[in-house]
Order: sequence, then C-alpha cells, then structure tokens
Amino acid sequence: MLTLYSFGPGANSLKPMATLYEKGLEFKQHFIDPSKFEQHSDWFKAINPRGQVPALQHEGKIITESTVICEYLEDVFPDQNPLRPADPYQRAQMRVWTKWVDEYFCWCVSTIGWAFGIKKIAQAMTDDEFEAHLKNVPIPEQPVKWRRARNGFPQEILDEEIRKGGVSVQRLEGTLSKQDYLLETGFSLADICNFAIANGMQREGGFFPEQVNEKATPGLIAWIDRINARPAIQKMFAEAKREEILKHTEKETAA
Amino acid sequence: MLTLYSFGPGANSLKPMATLYEKGLEFKQHFIDPSKFEQHSDWFKAINPRGQVPALQHEGKIITESTVICEYLEDVFPDQNPLRPADPYQRAQMRVWTKWVDEYFCWCVSTIGWAFGIKKIAQAMTDDEFEAHLKNVPIPEQPVKWRRARNGFPQEILDEEIRKGGVSVQRLEGTLSKQDYLLETGFSLADICNFAIANGMQREGGFFPEQVNEKATPGLIAWIDRINARPAIQKMFAEAKREEILKHTEKETAA
Repeated sequence: MLTLYSFGPGANSLKPMATLYEKGLEFKQHFIDPSKFEQHSDWFKAINPRGQVPALQHEGKIITESTVICEYLEDVFPDQNPLRPADPYQRAQMRVWTKWVDEYFCWCVSTIGWAFGIKKIAQAMTDDEFEAHLKNVPIPEQPVKWRRARNGFPQEILDEEIRKGGVSVQRLEGTLSKQDYLLETGFSLADICNFAIANGMQREGGFFPEQVNEKATPGLIAWIDRINARPAIQKMFAEAKREEILKHTEKETAA
Repeated sequence: MLTLYSFGPGANSLKPMATLYEKGLEFKQHFIDPSKFEQHSDWFKAINPRGQVPALQHEGKIITESTVICEYLEDVFPDQNPLRPADPYQRAQMRVWTKWVDEYFCWCVSTIGWAFGIKKIAQAMTDDEFEAHLKNVPIPEQPVKWRRARNGFPQEILDEEIRKGGVSVQRLEGTLSKQDYLLETGFSLADICNFAIANGMQREGGFFPEQVNEKATPGLIAWIDRINARPAIQKMFAEAKREEILKHTEKETAA
C-alpha cells in the first residue's frame, strides 16, 4: 500500500504524484491542508519530523524529499513505465536536471509563490495565531520566510529571484527549442521535476509572463502543453485534491 | 578509460575521487590548478561549459556535478565494491544525505573556504588581473562570491554560515553517536559525500573547532578518523595532486 502525504498537484508535491500517475500505481492521496498548517501538526511531524510534504508511506516506512521519492518509486517499480533512462550517461543527465531544479530553479518560483500565495495564508491569521504557529515550525530557517510572506519580501530579493527565473527559463528553452523532452531518450523524471515548477509560469496575470510566452519561449510553452496533454497528467489534475485558498490565486492570475 | 578533472582531494572534488579509489577503478587524475584559474580557461570550458570541477570523462562523454558522478560510477560499475545499498529504502536514505550535503551542509563550509582559502587566490592578483579573470567566469552568480572573497565577506554572512555549520554538525552527530556510518547498512556514498565536506572541520586553528571536537561531537570525530583510516582513502591522500596555495592554509590551521 502506497500513501502520499502532499499538498495539491503543484511544486514539490506534484513530483511524486505525477510519477505515481505516470507509472500507473495505485495509491492513496492524503491531502495535507496548508491553510490549517497540517504539515506542522504533531501527528504529521511524527511522520516527517521536518514538517514538510511530500512524504510517501510504503510498507510501513516513510520516504521524504520529493526527488528522492521519485527515484525510490523507480527503484521499487522499475518495470512499470520506466521514467529513468536505462543508459547511465542519460541517467546522469536526468540527475543534472533534477538536481538543478532543487538547487536553483525551484527557489525563484517558490519565493514568488511565498510572496503572493503563502502570503494569503500568513495574513489570514491574527498576530497571536501567527506567532503561535511559528513555534510549531521545525526547520530553524523557515520562520524567516514565514515572516517575509506575512510582512512582504524585500523588493531586491523579489527582483533577484525574477532574474534567476529568467536564467532558468532560458536554460529550459535552450534544450526544448530542439527536442520534445529534456532528454533525447524521451519523457523522464527530468521532465516531471521541471514541469512541477514551470507549469503555471506561462499563465497570464502571473509573475513570469514576460519571460514565458509563445514568442520568447515557444519550445518551453509547447513542452508545458505537451505534458499537460498526457493522459496520466490529465487524470492527476482531475482527481487530486487541491488547496481551496490557492484556487483563488489561480483564478486571479488566470483572469 | 576514466579521466577525472578535479582540484585536490577536498570538498566536491573528493567525492568522485574517493568513489573511484574505494571502487578500485583505474583512472587518470587531471589536476586543474585553481591558482591559475584553469577551471575558467577556454580549453576546460570546452569540457564543462560551467567552468566547474569535478568533471569525469568516460567513453568520450563528460559527466558533471560531483554527486551525479558518484551515482554514475555506481550505475556503470555496480559490482565493484558497491557504495549504494541494494535496499531501496536505505538507498533513499543515502540520497537524503547526499542531497542535504549539496543543498545545505556544503554551503556553510564552502563559504568559510571562500572567505579564507580562496581569498588568498583572489588577493594574489592585481585589480586588472582580477577584473579580467571575472570576465571568464561562466556562471552569472559567481562573480559576487569572487568579489567577496577578495574584499571580505559581510560578517553577518559568516556568522550565519557558522551557525548553519553548527546545525549540520549536530545532525551528523545525532546519527554518528549511534552507529559507525551514516546508514545502518554500512559505508556508502552518504559517508563519502559528507566526509568530503566535514573532513578538516576538526582541525585546530580552523573555523569550526568549537563545534567539532572530542567533547562536543565524539561520534563525528570517530567517524572522520574511521574514514581517514580506510586503505582506499589513505591511498587517495598519498597519491592525489593538491593545491600548493592551499597547503599553506592547512599548515597554518594545523599550527
């Protein structure tokens, strides 16, 4: 039995979720509600002491870290629609891409997400509720981010992250202007992990529309459309539970 | 034929080098001299456009990123002293450790290295030489670090990195006070990748002696000694070429 503890199908939560759908594996989605701070509740910290989603439960064990979970699913179920290339060189290229997402690309998009999406959650609390909440956050560096989400990020940080977003988008376009997927060998975890972060950047009214559009990045736009059209991905978006509070933001940015 | 382009046996360069020695694989060490900025020379950027070591050449192909190279060597030579556990859950724990090194632990120690070791390289140049050098650095974010190495890092950055060093050391001690290696299953890439960063923190006159010592972190100290005593690691340190300019720093901090 596989249970995925996650937010809705976006960002790091999307990575193992899309991997499970693409591999056609049965699993239970246990939705963690960020507007209720369930990820920092005692019951969830008993599952992942770092208070972070996603987390996968399998045969009584817990696997954490989104990229690690994706590789775990390949290690345990290698024959069900393999998402890692068999060739070691191509597999290394896949890991260069997934590592780059975790060390660089995800941060620019995530900071914008904190500045505008998480802001709504942070501002929906009274001062006392907010301070009480911060006491439950287990990662020592995270309260800084929560305070910024509530009070506003310094503009120089936002500017720098949007600049890095531009660098990231150009790196993706450099490959996707030449081929359908990030590896020559076809769809892989490299695509899933990058799509988890890139999907949404193209939306009108979002924060990267000048960087991601038909004219500036036709290869990237076509790749986002191509992945959104995959049957497993469509099934995931149709079935997965998602954040009520963030549906609003999506509607606003889509407006 | 395997060729490793690297600095001396420390930090990220140590990871694939120790993996090659531990697996008993024949390879050629192509030493890249940081005091001559060889990593930013045109010939080396033809090998790795990011101008970063280590890089591995194998069967005419180049593999980059130290952790990715280690996994590549396991993928290609799985039977020669395996350094990844066979069990998928343990393998996932290994990847949580190697990922944490790359995303958190390496940065605190690396910043101190830049502030005190790389500083010597940066200050050995005239202003004109330094500015000319920066033009050859391909990663857009790196010149900021080079300028700080030359002119001094803000004290608040150094203080924060030393604080994170303390968090890191406690995480390692938490496991190493209970077992000989980071995984229950024994020596693995988790140890190699963490040792690459931790080895040296224990030196008297260094920057972490209050955090890493017999009294505060006996498990970590014993683990550093245990790895330094491994025959393959001793062979590596005896044979590998290293930086002349950094030998000084080591002598100073050992004094």
